[in-house]
Amino acid sequence: AFLIIWLSQLCYNWEKHILTFSFILLYVNSFVARSKTCGELRSAHIGQEVTLCGWIQYKRHEQFVVLRDFQGLTQILIPQVEVSAIENCFCSFLMQTGDIEVKAETAEVLNYCKKLPFEIKDFTKKTEALRMQYRYLDIRSIQMQYNLRLRSQVVMRMREYLCNCYDFVDVETPTLFKKTPGGAKEFVVPSREAGKFYSLPQSPQQFKQLLMVGGLDRYFQVARCYRDEGSKPDRQPEFTQIDIEMSFVDQDGILALIEGMLQYSWPKEKGLIKIPFPSITYDEALSTYGTDKPDTRFGMKIIDVSHILRNVDVAFLQNSLSEPHGTVKAICIPQGAKLQFKDLESLNELSKSQFNQCSALGKLRLKSAELLEAKGLLLRDPSAFHFLWVVEFPLFLPKEKNPEELEAAHHPFTAPHPLDEHLLYSDPSQVRGQHYDLVLNGNEIGGGSIRIHNAKQQRFILEKVLKEDTELLFHLLEALESGAPPHGGIALGLDRLICLLVGGSSIRDVIAFPKSFRGRDLMSNAPDYVDPQELEPYHVQVTWPLTEAKARTN
Amino acid sequence: AFLIIWLSQLCYNWEKHILTFSFILLYVNSFVARSKTCGELRSAHIGQEVTLCGWIQYKRHEQFVVLRDFQGLTQILIPQVEVSAIENCFCSFLMQTGDIEVKAETAEVLNYCKKLPFEIKDFTKKTEALRMQYRYLDIRSIQMQYNLRLRSQVVMRMREYLCNCYDFVDVETPTLFKKTPGGAKEFVVPSREAGKFYSLPQSPQQFKQLLMVGGLDRYFQVARCYRDEGSKPDRQPEFTQIDIEMSFVDQDGILALIEGMLQYSWPKEKGLIKIPFPSITYDEALSTYGTDKPDTRFGMKIIDVSHILRNVDVAFLQNSLSEPHGTVKAICIPQGAKLQFKDLESLNELSKSQFNQCSALGKLRLKSAELLEAKGLLLRDPSAFHFLWVVEFPLFLPKEKNPEELEAAHHPFTAPHPLDEHLLYSDPSQVRGQHYDLVLNGNEIGGGSIRIHNAKQQRFILEKVLKEDTELLFHLLEALESGAPPHGGIALGLDRLICLLVGGSSIRDVIAFPKSFRGRDLMSNAPDYVDPQELEPYHVQVTWPLTEAKARTN
Repeated sequence: AFLIIWLSQLCYNWEKHILTFSFILLYVNSFVARSKTCGELRSAHIGQEVTLCGWIQYKRHEQFVVLRDFQGLTQILIPQVEVSAIENCFCSFLMQTGDIEVKAETAEVLNYCKKLPFEIKDFTKKTEALRMQYRYLDIRSIQMQYNLRLRSQVVMRMREYLCNCYDFVDVETPTLFKKTPGGAKEFVVPSREAGKFYSLPQSPQQFKQLLMVGGLDRYFQVARCYRDEGSKPDRQPEFTQIDIEMSFVDQDGILALIEGMLQYSWPKEKGLIKIPFPSITYDEALSTYGTDKPDTRFGMKIIDVSHILRNVDVAFLQNSLSEPHGTVKAICIPQGAKLQFKDLESLNELSKSQFNQCSALGKLRLKSAELLEAKGLLLRDPSAFHFLWVVEFPLFLPKEKNPEELEAAHHPFTAPHPLDEHLLYSDPSQVRGQHYDLVLNGNEIGGGSIRIHNAKQQRFILEKVLKEDTELLFHLLEALESGAPPHGGIALGLDRLICLLVGGSSIRDVIAFPKSFRGRDLMSNAPDYVDPQELEPYHVQVTWPLTEAKARTN
Repeated sequence: AFLIIWLSQLCYNWEKHILTFSFILLYVNSFVARSKTCGELRSAHIGQEVTLCGWIQYKRHEQFVVLRDFQGLTQILIPQVEVSAIENCFCSFLMQTGDIEVKAETAEVLNYCKKLPFEIKDFTKKTEALRMQYRYLDIRSIQMQYNLRLRSQVVMRMREYLCNCYDFVDVETPTLFKKTPGGAKEFVVPSREAGKFYSLPQSPQQFKQLLMVGGLDRYFQVARCYRDEGSKPDRQPEFTQIDIEMSFVDQDGILALIEGMLQYSWPKEKGLIKIPFPSITYDEALSTYGTDKPDTRFGMKIIDVSHILRNVDVAFLQNSLSEPHGTVKAICIPQGAKLQFKDLESLNELSKSQFNQCSALGKLRLKSAELLEAKGLLLRDPSAFHFLWVVEFPLFLPKEKNPEELEAAHHPFTAPHPLDEHLLYSDPSQVRGQHYDLVLNGNEIGGGSIRIHNAKQQRFILEKVLKEDTELLFHLLEALESGAPPHGGIALGLDRLICLLVGGSSIRDVIAFPKSFRGRDLMSNAPDYVDPQELEPYHVQVTWPLTEAKARTN
């Protein structure tokens, strides 16, 4: 047996996560040079010849090295090898392989490592920009390894549930597509036909509906989606959604499917999740929590106290109550006495900035929770997972810029609530949609709807209610006329879900190579300038902003 | 129980494929309105109440309809429902549900179907353009349903093999990236920074190597890739590859992994495949088959007969043999006597057109096979799957335009053959690479290599041998210097593999929504013109070709 090692200065501590992966350890050494991983050896192996491959984690005195791979650490006794190049490093730590020591017969240095820009140690402080620039080093950290491996396993379990248990068909749909109506925020891709562009779609929405028309019955895809939101915190220009669509299904069917899928794929070490999830209507969510994505890990519900205060002789209360729809609402803050004057001041400031916004009370509720937690009270258990369905959204909302006109609350393909269909023609603003959002700990992690399968209804909504040009959707309308089945679906934001699962501070923590909030890849420096010649086949040229154009000619 | 039906004129015959999916039938009715599929009922079910959902396939007399879904057909007796809208249709066919008949208690028409542009029947001839325009109808065909479902199942099995059996990590890598050096054929995506573009990468090559540097050990991804090849037959601007990379692995390890994966995921109804696959060197492939992707389902090998003919007094033979490296080679055509004069003429024509090309004999071999098959001889069994590894490719090839200079035969990250490393510095054109191609029935379906993990060697090859600007690869070179492990991998072309598996005539037959050979989506009419305003945030404008610019101003 021989020992393969090489040099690096990274620090690992796999112990706390190792159990997660142990069920598949059996075959992890197939096809490669090692016979065991560095986390595998125990006293039962004493006497065996083994081959290990990994990075040198520590050197102790002149004879010992601690070898590290993605599974753990093993101490090696190397009587003859030159280890002088390796920095001495003392540390006291627990290794699961602590009972054994490998005596090297042969050791081979396979590669060298220059001085790294940062040490890969849990306690090393480094800016996110530096982590992004050297992402291939950042990925060596315990946390990133754990995040990426957990993500892979959760998605695999979802696939088993959908594909193997429930006969869903995994269909890949195009990402070079056509502009969606109203689809601002879509990246364009110039084609070789002058003036013609593909769009990178924000979701496979149209394709999945067309697949239902095509009789595919049960579709899913782990779909790459694109959205150009400029610089928004914690958004990515490309992101991933678990995209699902079924025929002959109603809202309850989709909800049960997703509950089952999340329960099936939930990592054991994160505890069991109870199904079915509770559900709340949009109206109730707004009145009780002041938001359509309530964090139900804690109470502090909003209570209407108008009836109590109606006869109290306080001017500002009476003023409020005398307004049309005027109410006075309250949040009862448990242990609120812990809040100090400056805390109350900051709550005051927040209220003023949110004046006349419906979401003001929701924000006050969250802010109060934050302030109490800063005092050491645990209101929102970070290890608890509170799922919540929000249902009965309005189908249309007044346009922000022109409240006389309506726009789709989610997208124009959502079917109206069966009880409200007649209102479509008389008072569309009152129609509820068969839309549902899935909320986890106050974060929207998915949404979907039962779709319109009737071409006439779809055309009415597009043309008469939304005043959209239907030409861009010609193919979809024609498809609905071709015997489209009733169908519905959902999409879960995978990045957000995994981020909540691992307790990450940003979705960038669960994406191998994320972009910065300005949409840049700091490692490779993308996007980058290209030679004007390379743009020629695409019939586009750059229109330089005036200042830059000047700078470039000087 | 009630029966849900609606109207369409499509024709289905699922019987021949139904066995493939029966192992997962148990749960296919969960979450939806039906209690059974239309392919499920047998005499054992007599007396049960059931709910079926589907399309009306046939109407018989005024009482019977045959309901169809993705699983099969069931005859329904409808005493009271209005079926006059449905065209009468006589047919004699076998149904697996032939022993039973469902007596409808309730029937509901859920949607109507207009006259379709073509009937979905096996024998309906339709142009591919029409199929593409109405792809959502084309997908209803037996063959397309089979192809898409088989594809989903094969990929799922591959995932099980990689993820569950061998602990690979499924990592999603970005598709908005930076231009690859020498990466012509890459689509560009304008960003909001003037003059800066993303590229849609042709493969996750750089990312997967960086993941190995990051200690991820075993990576795979079913990766969407992009290549702008203009109008090439049977290519797609976006396609899918099974992308794999491992650390501490050698060529034999990768080959064994892939053989195991294909055996594990191969559909039962396509027969067993034997592993290990045979392998052949590049040189041997060229000399024996005249191509680096030999179809080994038939013999007719190329034989060097120079030694026999050296003393034969025929002028054109002697002329050939007297040239430097001059040889005379032969193919023995079994039953060649069946070839007629015009066949021999066409072979003659082909030889002339291929004069002086090394691949001439390979093409003659294939053409001869074609001609013999046209006579009714079965040389290439379409149900046979002959895998072949081609190994020991040259690492570099002379550039077509300037044969004095060298270019990478595959890509610049391929490691040299260990026995040839010394030649890198003296005679690089003689260096073999650790590259391997996987060939199936004469089609290249995958390729990979052991990569260079030594930064110095990588820099030498890029700068000194290939004369490439290394600036674009700065991050990769820096990563190799940071303790990169020895690593290697492979990518399989999924579309091509599934196409061969189902015996499709084009990869378009195994892609749900493919582009035409000009890169157009004929259904939605993508790519399409966009409003110049929409290009403004991206700082690009269209440069109209002169003729078109004129036409647009007139």
